[in-house]
Amino acid sequence: MAQYRVLIDANDEKGLVHKISTLFYNKDLNILSNNEFVDRENNKFFMRSVVDGEIEYLDLKESLSKVLPNNVNIEVIKPQKKNIIIMVTKEMHALGDILIRHEAGELEANILCVISNYSDLKSLVSKFDIPFVTISHVGLDRVEHENKILDCLSRYKDIDYIVLAKYMRILTPGFVEQYEDKIINIHHSFLPAFIGANPYKQAFDRGVKIIGATSHFVNNNLDEGPIIAQEVIHVDHAYGWRDMQRSGRNVEKIVLSSALKLALEDRIFVYANKTVIF
Amino acid sequence: MAQYRVLIDANDEKGLVHKISTLFYNKDLNILSNNEFVDRENNKFFMRSVVDGEIEYLDLKESLSKVLPNNVNIEVIKPQKKNIIIMVTKEMHALGDILIRHEAGELEANILCVISNYSDLKSLVSKFDIPFVTISHVGLDRVEHENKILDCLSRYKDIDYIVLAKYMRILTPGFVEQYEDKIINIHHSFLPAFIGANPYKQAFDRGVKIIGATSHFVNNNLDEGPIIAQEVIHVDHAYGWRDMQRSGRNVEKIVLSSALKLALEDRIFVYANKTVIF
Amino acid sequence: MAQYRVLIDANDEKGLVHKISTLFYNKDLNILSNNEFVDRENNKFFMRSVVDGEIEYLDLKESLSKVLPNNVNIEVIKPQKKNIIIMVTKEMHALGDILIRHEAGELEANILCVISNYSDLKSLVSKFDIPFVTISHVGLDRVEHENKILDCLSRYKDIDYIVLAKYMRILTPGFVEQYEDKIINIHHSFLPAFIGANPYKQAFDRGVKIIGATSHFVNNNLDEGPIIAQEVIHVDHAYGWRDMQRSGRNVEKIVLSSALKLALEDRIFVYANKTVIF
Amino acid sequence: MAQYRVLIDANDEKGLVHKISTLFYNKDLNILSNNEFVDRENNKFFMRSVVDGEIEYLDLKESLSKVLPNNVNIEVIKPQKKNIIIMVTKEMHALGDILIRHEAGELEANILCVISNYSDLKSLVSKFDIPFVTISHVGLDRVEHENKILDCLSRYKDIDYIVLAKYMRILTPGFVEQYEDKIINIHHSFLPAFIGANPYKQAFDRGVKIIGATSHFVNNNLDEGPIIAQEVIHVDHAYGWRDMQRSGRNVEKIVLSSALKLALEDRIFVYANKTVIF
Repeated sequence: MAQYRVLIDANDEKGLVHKISTLFYNKDLNILSNNEFVDRENNKFFMRSVVDGEIEYLDLKESLSKVLPNNVNIEVIKPQKKNIIIMVTKEMHALGDILIRHEAGELEANILCVISNYSDLKSLVSKFDIPFVTISHVGLDRVEHENKILDCLSRYKDIDYIVLAKYMRILTPGFVEQYEDKIINIHHSFLPAFIGANPYKQAFDRGVKIIGATSHFVNNNLDEGPIIAQEVIHVDHAYGWRDMQRSGRNVEKIVLSSALKLALEDRIFVYANKTVIF
Repeated sequence: MAQYRVLIDANDEKGLVHKISTLFYNKDLNILSNNEFVDRENNKFFMRSVVDGEIEYLDLKESLSKVLPNNVNIEVIKPQKKNIIIMVTKEMHALGDILIRHEAGELEANILCVISNYSDLKSLVSKFDIPFVTISHVGLDRVEHENKILDCLSRYKDIDYIVLAKYMRILTPGFVEQYEDKIINIHHSFLPAFIGANPYKQAFDRGVKIIGATSHFVNNNLDEGPIIAQEVIHVDHAYGWRDMQRSGRNVEKIVLSSALKLALEDRIFVYANKTVIF
Repeated sequence: MAQYRVLIDANDEKGLVHKISTLFYNKDLNILSNNEFVDRENNKFFMRSVVDGEIEYLDLKESLSKVLPNNVNIEVIKPQKKNIIIMVTKEMHALGDILIRHEAGELEANILCVISNYSDLKSLVSKFDIPFVTISHVGLDRVEHENKILDCLSRYKDIDYIVLAKYMRILTPGFVEQYEDKIINIHHSFLPAFIGANPYKQAFDRGVKIIGATSHFVNNNLDEGPIIAQEVIHVDHAYGWRDMQRSGRNVEKIVLSSALKLALEDRIFVYANKTVIF
Repeated sequence: MAQYRVLIDANDEKGLVHKISTLFYNKDLNILSNNEFVDRENNKFFMRSVVDGEIEYLDLKESLSKVLPNNVNIEVIKPQKKNIIIMVTKEMHALGDILIRHEAGELEANILCVISNYSDLKSLVSKFDIPFVTISHVGLDRVEHENKILDCLSRYKDIDYIVLAKYMRILTPGFVEQYEDKIINIHHSFLPAFIGANPYKQAFDRGVKIIGATSHFVNNNLDEGPIIAQEVIHVDHAYGWRDMQRSGRNVEKIVLSSALKLALEDRIFVYANKTVIF
């Protein structure tokens, strides 16, 4: 028995569910879970099914293509550990949370390596027998630095996701384009408020009563990529910006780990700079 | 063009989605939204679809019965205002919230009347030109009192829901049986904590840091019916139990109104003393 | 026995608490509650005490002035109902919530009148025997319209707060200056995100997973005044912007009523475009 | 310059704040922060001040005793790392969160050792160069097992707190008495709901829409000790009990770490089986 995650998105038209469910029925597949959503404004159809049965990957993929219109996107995915790269700067909490989950066997992922522009976190990562690569940006312009990172990445084939676990440098369009919808960032504010540097200081100066964190895919507009997950906590006048930063870390790490989990379980569709999440 | 909400629950078996979606396709129905859930532990299938098309109510209902196995529950519902009765005692907040929503046209409901064992809220209800009936319990035993209420209810046919908006008396099994899964209560605690009288006092005495409210269908075990919605707020040592009660009112009214909205939109399945909510 | 709320703010210096508490002690006053905060960055001291005892208002006020440095702000307030004006446009939920609380005796306030640029809500307000004044903006420029409102306000002396319960027009600096830190607004977004018109549409377009509402004092920068209270709710891809708007109403009304309650209980200090709230 | 945390609790009487603040003033101490609370029902006064100045510990302690009534509890604490012992069974998340915070320098604590009745977590703890002691309960009765643990604990003097980071055995009264208000537990439910074993299964069976976690001091009634912190998350019908357990872990670890932080910063008063937290 094989289990598959089937992700389908298309321009909506009558009969899509009928065609897909009829195929599942004819192939004697068991539907373990099924989610659909139609964005009526944009006339887009999304469906994620988990099925199992006696069927080969290629047979299922091909059969779906045959019964569905040409312009439909079909993904058939065997649940298995995905390969991820983590990029960090100096802060430990978001990385630490992922390492502990990985160690606990909670993540459907292999951590291929951790890359940083500083060596501060090497000691932590080494405890877990995961490669740590320091690629300093000192004396390099942005592109030179990224080329070194790309060199490093090129040593790994099949990178499914790059996780920016408080990587504090902005990536160039050239870099981002190579990993479209594959780079997951945690921004330490409740986007779209407080885009850019030191959002806790910005939040403090504005006197907000709630702070938050946002995990999103990275695209070429700073902190403007499709949002995957957000969470908030209440603060009051007694919080200085460093208190906000300290409390915010709890939210940051939980939100990033949640977003990563959604990605690893193939639960996210990206379109129109938004996400549909099942 | 008619719009229908189709609610189906059944023992799970292969082909249900296929059969239903094929019927929708053949009848040329447009699926506006579609939710499914399979409880694998109990092998139960739930589906709620909103469809529109050129079809008569009876034709759709009958066609579904024909293609589906015998033991499947099928409900086809035309979206329209439901008839509700509200029962209260003396507190104004939950009732007031429903009255304002009703006045604002937010509720898919006609309020047939408000029944109370006291006349305190008559003045408020009368402002909205809604009948208010005082049925005092003084000098009556529980069954005698309820018989008077049942008399009053019998004047209305087609009562879809009875909403207990802080009705502070326990209903007898005889009463509850006549309105199975039709009586919606708000309990002023985060069930199953603090069952019974004065939950805020109980919560205060226990020194909790969070209080809440629970809306549930009423069955014959006190505060044990299927839960529809819950919400909480944080409190601290500075809250006396009356402060908790005061703050709790915000949660109570929002939770009750949310649960009522779910019911009016036919989004709730009840089974195994739980709810499935789409 | 008289009860007073004593609000003191000053540049921080040693001995303030000592001087104040010694005075309370010498005057044989009972401290019912006491809150202090020092903003170390700005070297500002804030204190709110509730005291009771056998003392005249003037005696307490004068005695405090004598023991404290010259530049200290001292407010001594007898708890009593405050006078408020509510301004609305067409939406009912925020106004309705205040009216119900007022009717339930929950608010320490007299509602002097409700002013609107439309007459839609007149029917609701009239039910509660509260004056409703329609001051249409049609055919008037902004200042002409506001002058008519100011005329209306001038009929009431001692207006403590003006509550903008979804008043959808921007007030001019001339208007705002006359009621500094006295106008409480509800903005239907989690400020500072989505400043300006139709924030739910903006939130929807950005694909956020959380929406919120912010109550703040109005100053002369649009949606930039000192924040009093904020709250949020989770949304997902299935929410169109009208769904967000509908769900957001629950948050809006609760946040505005909470902020109003804080103001009526004299719990808010405003400084540096922020609030300290006890 | 020395900094001290001054914690005072007493039966409330007039003049306490006056006496304390006058002493601080006379000793030329700077009040960095100050919190007070009076429980009017029980007539209890609580105060936590952080002060700095040129003063010796003994002088401050003694001076306070002299000016205050006899039955007042006075604690003067120099901020410094506290000594903690962590007890675990097999689950990694709560322990891992503390280890990462410790490694990041976020905790005001030395972890003296980790004790477990299983050796599963030895590998993790060893990475951080922290002693791990396995004390199996197999073949021992409860008291014999605890005596072995007490033996181990006796090797460390000055244990400030024992943290039960998912230690899944019930401690006997004999054990608990020796560490009154010093054992911090995380219970994986929103107490007082679901006391005892497998609360997630209980929550699932009850069909709740919110689950939570509670950190509390341990006393001799199972899950009945004074509550320090609680937090919740929303769930729905699609969550099996293992899903609840998985999601609950995020809440458990954050709540336990938050409670520990409050304890390490001397922010908690315990009385009447409750906590006052500043």
